Parts: sequence; C-alpha cells; structure tokens
Amino acid sequence: MLIKEASLQTFTENIFLKIGCSLEHAQLAANVLLRADLRGIDSHGVARLSGYVRLWEKNRINPKPNIQIVHETPTTATVDGDAGLGLVVAPFAMQVAIEKAEKYGSGWVSVRNSNHFGIAGYHALLAVEKEMIGFAMTNASPLVAPTFSNERMLGTNPMCYAFPAGKYPPLVVDMATSAAANGKLEIAQRAGKPVPEGWIQDENGSFTTDPHALKSGGSLLPLGSDREHGSHKGFGLSATVDILSAVLSGANYGPWVPPFVAYLDPHPNPVGTGIGHFLGAMRVDGFRLIEDFKHHLDNWIERFKSANPIHPDQKVIIPGEPELEAELDRKVNGIPLVDAVVKDLNELAEKLGVEGLGEF
Amino acid sequence: MLIKEASLQTFTENIFLKIGCSLEHAQLAANVLLRADLRGIDSHGVARLSGYVRLWEKNRINPKPNIQIVHETPTTATVDGDAGLGLVVAPFAMQVAIEKAEKYGSGWVSVRNSNHFGIAGYHALLAVEKEMIGFAMTNASPLVAPTFSNERMLGTNPMCYAFPAGKYPPLVVDMATSAAANGKLEIAQRAGKPVPEGWIQDENGSFTTDPHALKSGGSLLPLGSDREHGSHKGFGLSATVDILSAVLSGANYGPWVPPFVAYLDPHPNPVGTGIGHFLGAMRVDGFRLIEDFKHHLDNWIERFKSANPIHPDQKVIIPGEPELEAELDRKVNGIPLVDAVVKDLNELAEKLGVEGLGEF
Repeated sequence: MLIKEASLQTFTENIFLKIGCSLEHAQLAANVLLRADLRGIDSHGVARLSGYVRLWEKNRINPKPNIQIVHETPTTATVDGDAGLGLVVAPFAMQVAIEKAEKYGSGWVSVRNSNHFGIAGYHALLAVEKEMIGFAMTNASPLVAPTFSNERMLGTNPMCYAFPAGKYPPLVVDMATSAAANGKLEIAQRAGKPVPEGWIQDENGSFTTDPHALKSGGSLLPLGSDREHGSHKGFGLSATVDILSAVLSGANYGPWVPPFVAYLDPHPNPVGTGIGHFLGAMRVDGFRLIEDFKHHLDNWIERFKSANPIHPDQKVIIPGEPELEAELDRKVNGIPLVDAVVKDLNELAEKLGVEGLGEF
Repeated sequence: MLIKEASLQTFTENIFLKIGCSLEHAQLAANVLLRADLRGIDSHGVARLSGYVRLWEKNRINPKPNIQIVHETPTTATVDGDAGLGLVVAPFAMQVAIEKAEKYGSGWVSVRNSNHFGIAGYHALLAVEKEMIGFAMTNASPLVAPTFSNERMLGTNPMCYAFPAGKYPPLVVDMATSAAANGKLEIAQRAGKPVPEGWIQDENGSFTTDPHALKSGGSLLPLGSDREHGSHKGFGLSATVDILSAVLSGANYGPWVPPFVAYLDPHPNPVGTGIGHFLGAMRVDGFRLIEDFKHHLDNWIERFKSANPIHPDQKVIIPGEPELEAELDRKVNGIPLVDAVVKDLNELAEKLGVEGLGEF
C-alpha cells in the first residue's frame, strides 16, 4: 500500500491525540515518525506506532509530560523528559542545545527519563537548519553483546553527525553502532532468510546466520563483528553513546535500559529513569565563515563522489544520500507500507476508535 | 631492549631540541610520544621520531611555531598550528578547549596547519584530569578507501572519547576508524605474516591477506570491512573526523592530507593548510554532580566487567584497560624497544650529534 505523507501524518496524529497527547505534541511526534518513513528507515517509522501505544497502555509513556531542564551551565544542560515520548522530548532538548549555541557557540544536552526518540537524523537535522553541526545519540533496549561476552548489555545505540553543505544536501552520518541495525534483522526474519555471518551470535557466542537466534538467547554483535575485525571499536562507540546519554544524565544504562517492547518489564532495580539521549549543536561560524565551510564541504562531497569505483556502476555513496533520495521520492509518490504494518495500524485505529488507513 | 621512561624522555627531548624546538616544546613533544610507548601503542611513540625529523628536514615541520587562535566564540575556536609539531599544537588547542569549558561548560577547538599529533588519548586525557569529558580526533595521510572504492581517500582518522571514573581509571575509547590500525599492518609486514581478510584490499578492490598490498596500490578498509558488515559506518565515522578536523578548520582533507612519510610530497594544490585536529572538553558537572557521575560510571564498569564471558578465561575488556595496564607495567619495568627502532634511533642520534640510546 502506497500512502500519501499527509494522510499518514493525520492518521498518526489522531492516534497520538487519542492516547492523550496535546495537539502540538501529537503533530510533532507524528512528524518525527513520518520522517523515518519518508527517509526509508521503515523500522523506525509508523511500524513502531502500536509499540508506543502499548507502552502507554502499561503506563510507561506519559502523554502529557512536563519536560524540563534540571541542571545547566551556559552551554550544557540535563533535561528530564518526565517519561514522555522521546519523539517530543528529544526535539525539546535539541531546541535547548540550539539556543545555547546561538548565544555561546555550542550547546550540549543530556536527557534522562525519556523513551524511544525515532531516528537520530531527525534531531541532528534540526541544528543543520540553523547552519549548525548537529549531534544526536540515544541508548536503547539491550540487544548487543560486548566483545568476548554473550550477554545482551547494550542497545544498537545510534550516533548521528549532520553537517550543512552548500549546493549539496546535508551530509548525515546516522548509524547504529552494531554491525547491523535491528531493523535489518527483522526484514530477514520476515523473509525467513539467513543473515550474513558477523551480524549476530547464538546463546553460546558463536556466529550464526539464523535471523531468529535472538529469540533463543542470542545477541547482536557490535560494529566490527569480532575482535579481529574491530568489534571492540563498535563496543567502544556503543559505550560512548551509553555514557553520554545515560550515565551523564541519570537515565538507565547498559542492561538496565527499559525494553521498547511492552511485554518485557523494565528492570526491577533501575539505576536511573527511563532511557537517555545526548544532543548537541555547534555553530559552523564559531569556527570559520559559513560560506567557506560550505564551499569546502561541497568540494569534499564532489571529490568523494568521484573516487575511483571498484565497479563502474557503483559509485561511492555520500552519507545521507540514500535517505535523501528516498525522501524526495516518497514526498511525491507516497510512502510504501507493507501489509503487516497496514493491518497492525488498522487494528490499532479500531481499538482506539480513530479512522483506519483503509478509509482514507 | 628495555629502556627506562626517564632515559627515553631525555633522549627524545634532546632530538627535539636539536631540530630547534624550545625546551618547553621539546619536553612536551617527548612527553606525548613517550605516552604512546608507555601505553603500549608502540606505532605512535618514538618509533616515529625519525619520521618527524625527516619532515623537519623537508621544511614541513616548523620547530618554532607561533600557534594562535584565529577565530572564536565563547565555546568554539579555530587554532592555526603554524606548521608546528601536532605533539605541541594539539595540547595548546586542548588547553583552549578546557579554559572555555571552565567558563561556559564546554569548549571545542578545530585545528589547521598542524602535523601528526601522536595518540589521541593523550589529548583527551588532559580534559579528564580536570573532571571533564575529553574528545580528540585527527585526520591523517590517506590510506583508507571509502566503501565501493579502491582509492585511498582517508586516513585511519582516530576518534577518542575519555571519561573520568571514580575508583576505576578513566574509561578511554581511542580507536582508528579503519578495520585495523596501520600499526597492526606494520607488525604483520615485519613478521611476514598474512593479515586477516577484511583489513585491506588490493588495487582491484578485492580482499587480500598480503600485508604488503598497500605498496602495490592496495588500501586499508573502513571499520566494518565490507558493505554487508557496515563498512559504510566506518566510512561515515572517518568522514566525520575529516570534516570536524579539517573542513571546519581550513586544513587539508581527504586525499589532500599531506603524507606523514617525508619521501612523498604533499599535494601540489592543497585545499587547506597542514593536517587538522578536533578537540573538545565538557565539564561533567555541567550535567550532574561529579560524584554521581563517577559513582554510576564505576557501576557501569563493574557491570560490564562481570558480563557473562563466552570463554571463562576471557572477560570483557573495558575500553582503555589494556593501555592502562601497559602504562603501569612500563612505568616500573621500562619500555621495550624492538631492535629496528633502537638502530633507527641511534642512527638519528648520530646524525644530529646527540647521545645515543646505547650510551645511557
């Protein structure tokens, strides 16, 4: 099913309104989710909507959060999300970072007591709109084992860095710090296809190609896959995300991070509140003239695009290019939803008494 | 040969004095190099000393640089290293970042017109000494090909994040963004041993285990090794380092970065000056009480140390642990130097007319 952005936005807003969000929050949360669908990161878009609702049903999401700054200096702050949707808590925190950067050159906000914030790229790009460099990270439900362990200790903990270019679109590095994002695993599970060696290990810590291994005690592997190929680096990056997002803010970290799925209960003895994010903004003109930066970033992009390809039909891809291509296409042609997602959303609509997708 | 830290420090200072460094700079530069040897990162210590001297002989290193801030806001700055040793330019820049963080909570410095800065960990740890989180990155001579290319476009571009703990030593993530650091390749070259698949590719872009493949048009691979295992993420991280270090400061980036080896000339049409670094410091107490942060980071470390091991004799390694163990050992027992390095250093000493290592 191909659905227009505006229709899906309205549908999603209606769901968020039904669980008690303000109009402003419902619009924002829908906007963040839709951005994932537009950018082709389908695992982080409306496919997760019923997951958020189930968390709300368990009283784990507060639809009317009192999001506030609880500690700050001129360029740093800790924000308490009051158990709100990460989809609205993170944009609040990024706004704080941007305002600090406007005054002092940079702004950095660590967030506690939040929930899943959608795609990191959405938040980092808020800074890019202001001619700033944007940073966004979050910790997440433990699925990844550190090097040498078979215990799930870390989330896929994404890092995002976004830079404003001149004639080219922003350069956006938005990546899980695991070898493969969980969304890719889910695609393989649905298709019943084996995954490449190096993505996951079984309960004994051996590589496996079974996409269902996580259901029997397996775990995702850090970027690098094994020690010989640098999995300790993926682990180090994931640790960095966890510490900046949660040890710094007072959120839960490591294996204490509450699971996104509502059928798993949060840890009985939490070490903090909710999940954590880390957001930052730096004014480009705090370092050099914005025109000079953009000119050179354009030059960087052109040079890398023209790097000698191994296969003539596959050029180097600039980080963020595929997502932008998806966005341009889907804004015009609509967002493709797989049947399982349409069914899930229509059931959700019926349960909450809002218009289903089929009726648009 | 096992040599005491103090003797190697004096030897190294004498070399830097001979090429015209001030006493203060010679001591600092020697200190930074020695720290690599102490921490077991032998590829970045005195093994590189004659390399720095050869660059000086080619007038590519200015022993008496006028290092200065050329652009700033309260929390950001660009520093021009005046072609000085990165070993002294980077500590200057980190000091600027720390002073800004003391006043405003955070400080961020992009550096141009510099040279190789030794290990990133040295610089990041300067912030940790002040109860801050330290960030250090640098670009480097192009040896790494982006995903889908066989052209050397990026350096091994390290990222370092360092955090102060309580009863444990600082947690230090200090990593090349390539699958393997160049130093590991050099060890395999000396030993004449094949390297694992996934570290390098040959001139045609095929995996090879030949450690000498870089001499015949091969290239290092980004962290992740191939597209299926996330090499586009390693490429994205490396790009981030390159942009923050050089596009932001006005240094050379990508394939324009001047080679560390003096027998290769810099690019005839540079896009900036020298190589670039990016350094940052954030006050922990800009986010939460330092005692609370340290308490929770200690808890994080303990929990990860006790994660279930795959093999009972190999526990999870906390980032920075192996380097600290080496440092504690080598501070007491001395620094081991391989014969080739001793020979190289003694020849250097003779050429410059300073006391050789054998005479200590």
